[in-house]
Amino acid sequence: MSTAQVTPESRGQFKAKAYSATSATSQLAPTMISRRKPGNHDVQIEILFCGICHSDLHQVRNEWSVMPTIYPCIPGHEIVGRVTKVGSEVTKFKPGDLAAVGCLVDSDGSCPDCQTGLEQFCPHLTLTYNSPDPHIGGVTFGGYSESIVVKDHFVLHVPPNLDLAGVAPLLCAGITTYSPMRHWHVTNGKKVGVIGLGGLGHMAVKFARALGAHVVVFTTSKSKKDDAIRLGADEIVISTDPAQMKKHTGSFDFILDTVSAEHDINAYIQLLRRDGNMTLVGAPDKPHALSGFGLLFQRRSISGSIIGGIAETQEMLDFCGKHNITADVEVIPMQKVNEAYERMLRSDVKYRFSIDMASLKSG
Amino acid sequence: MSTAQVTPESRGQFKAKAYSATSATSQLAPTMISRRKPGNHDVQIEILFCGICHSDLHQVRNEWSVMPTIYPCIPGHEIVGRVTKVGSEVTKFKPGDLAAVGCLVDSDGSCPDCQTGLEQFCPHLTLTYNSPDPHIGGVTFGGYSESIVVKDHFVLHVPPNLDLAGVAPLLCAGITTYSPMRHWHVTNGKKVGVIGLGGLGHMAVKFARALGAHVVVFTTSKSKKDDAIRLGADEIVISTDPAQMKKHTGSFDFILDTVSAEHDINAYIQLLRRDGNMTLVGAPDKPHALSGFGLLFQRRSISGSIIGGIAETQEMLDFCGKHNITADVEVIPMQKVNEAYERMLRSDVKYRFSIDMASLKSG
Repeated sequence: MSTAQVTPESRGQFKAKAYSATSATSQLAPTMISRRKPGNHDVQIEILFCGICHSDLHQVRNEWSVMPTIYPCIPGHEIVGRVTKVGSEVTKFKPGDLAAVGCLVDSDGSCPDCQTGLEQFCPHLTLTYNSPDPHIGGVTFGGYSESIVVKDHFVLHVPPNLDLAGVAPLLCAGITTYSPMRHWHVTNGKKVGVIGLGGLGHMAVKFARALGAHVVVFTTSKSKKDDAIRLGADEIVISTDPAQMKKHTGSFDFILDTVSAEHDINAYIQLLRRDGNMTLVGAPDKPHALSGFGLLFQRRSISGSIIGGIAETQEMLDFCGKHNITADVEVIPMQKVNEAYERMLRSDVKYRFSIDMASLKSG
Repeated sequence: MSTAQVTPESRGQFKAKAYSATSATSQLAPTMISRRKPGNHDVQIEILFCGICHSDLHQVRNEWSVMPTIYPCIPGHEIVGRVTKVGSEVTKFKPGDLAAVGCLVDSDGSCPDCQTGLEQFCPHLTLTYNSPDPHIGGVTFGGYSESIVVKDHFVLHVPPNLDLAGVAPLLCAGITTYSPMRHWHVTNGKKVGVIGLGGLGHMAVKFARALGAHVVVFTTSKSKKDDAIRLGADEIVISTDPAQMKKHTGSFDFILDTVSAEHDINAYIQLLRRDGNMTLVGAPDKPHALSGFGLLFQRRSISGSIIGGIAETQEMLDFCGKHNITADVEVIPMQKVNEAYERMLRSDVKYRFSIDMASLKSG
């Protein structure tokens, strides 16, 4: 006699409002999606805000050859909301708690990366959207939705003192800039450069400042000076002015390069001191031209970084709570998402869009 | 009343046989040069062997725009010999001791680099050849000579059990490969790749093996297999075979890139595991094409390294003594140096030329 097992699949599903794209060329539009009912280790969250990340646009438009888009696509991996239900084994959360979800919703839990809290490098990770969904089939659906159900390990606590609209972007833009600064030991008194002042760059400035560094923003645009200073920069350097650049030769402990457009990385490598590191968190389609000599003569290094692990994401959120850090956001209703994408392409946002999900219920 | 000070300059000079180039296009030929008589902190060395480094050829032929050659040029920075005289303040050496000199003969001693034993990064260092000579004017003269006088701090002790002809190349090829392995923590059980099996590469294989690593040699030439295994490699990979390369994806802790010719570094970056590092110790004239994505996804890094500090050079020599490591050399008389340069350009040497300086006395 077989015993019926209560699996997430047999437990059933429920419907949720969402915005989806049905092809690479279609606009995001209202739809209804299925979510699994929470299993023993799951947390069900009513989404209050979801940040708009440049990755959302890339995925929706199928611009990544290494990660082809499965449609319908529901993006969104900067999620903050309130817990509505928890599974029987969940001890970290209870209904009513604030909660956040970033780019990851599952991983194998057993590989060396997971065992050291670096789930972002797990070879079997499940991304918040466009990853195969092991529970109800198809692909995972992201945060452009009124709710989401996520395994408790991948759900973060949100400090109660922070503005929730500005918390959402911390889950990707925040951890993407926080993690390499911690990894490369940005601490009190270090000299830190931030290349680019967009969604990632403005977070990097806030973190570097809060970590006690002397912060220099590199930008091509003089008009960004006042904003850079307001965000916490000590100086700005117009990167197209060789004289300004030269003054900083060999002086930086760490430079975070947030720029995805093509640019000359060698000019920045020259600004690193001995054993200094430059970390890329954006990458142009075309390869960089890298002069080996810039690395050799001062034992400099260049590296990459991508989001962060779950424990470090929680650490980042707690750090934000302590230092009262959130992203600078422009709050929009869900209905304005397509317009927001076009504005994001023109860098016409200071510095991140955050979707107020209440708009989805009323829309 | 003024007191006459005994400076190295007033102490006088003596003549020494040497080989020099008088222009970028002239052959190296016998000459007589001046050396300062040893000052209080100086060590005078009778040179027994001097290795031939590719840098010697570059400098002689004035191929480095950043470091123009002053003629006459006497190259040589892989020097081993016997102490003949010491200054009154020298306690580390006495006449009759074995002694070695590498790429550096002075530095300011006070900068943060010198204070941490990283004299190779001192902004005021004096190279063994072609640097302004503060003692007797002109530029410093290297090891293609019967003798040299060097400040005691920059003179190394040589373990007595090693073959001196094979010790000479340790002073540049040796420390250049040893230093980055120590810096990036090559230890027992690590998987280490060595790109290129020349003067630097063959030393890298020996060190990686002695440090307990699993050693993989990347080469374009199948014919190097037996030699790679003999030198200590566990495996070789033909780098032009994508299938062989792919098998090692994400598996290396550290890769040392000793190749100065143009090559695709991204193919190797893919072979690094999470947090793995690839260090360049050679650099092509043209910049490398670097894909940022290879760095991002596993937090990999690429860096440069150049020789090593004095304390670390001594550590390397002591390590060689303990593990009985020397370079594989072809010993030549001084008179064959021009021919050796041509053969070096064709990689026709296993793996380094070492000049027997006795030939200079008799020549």
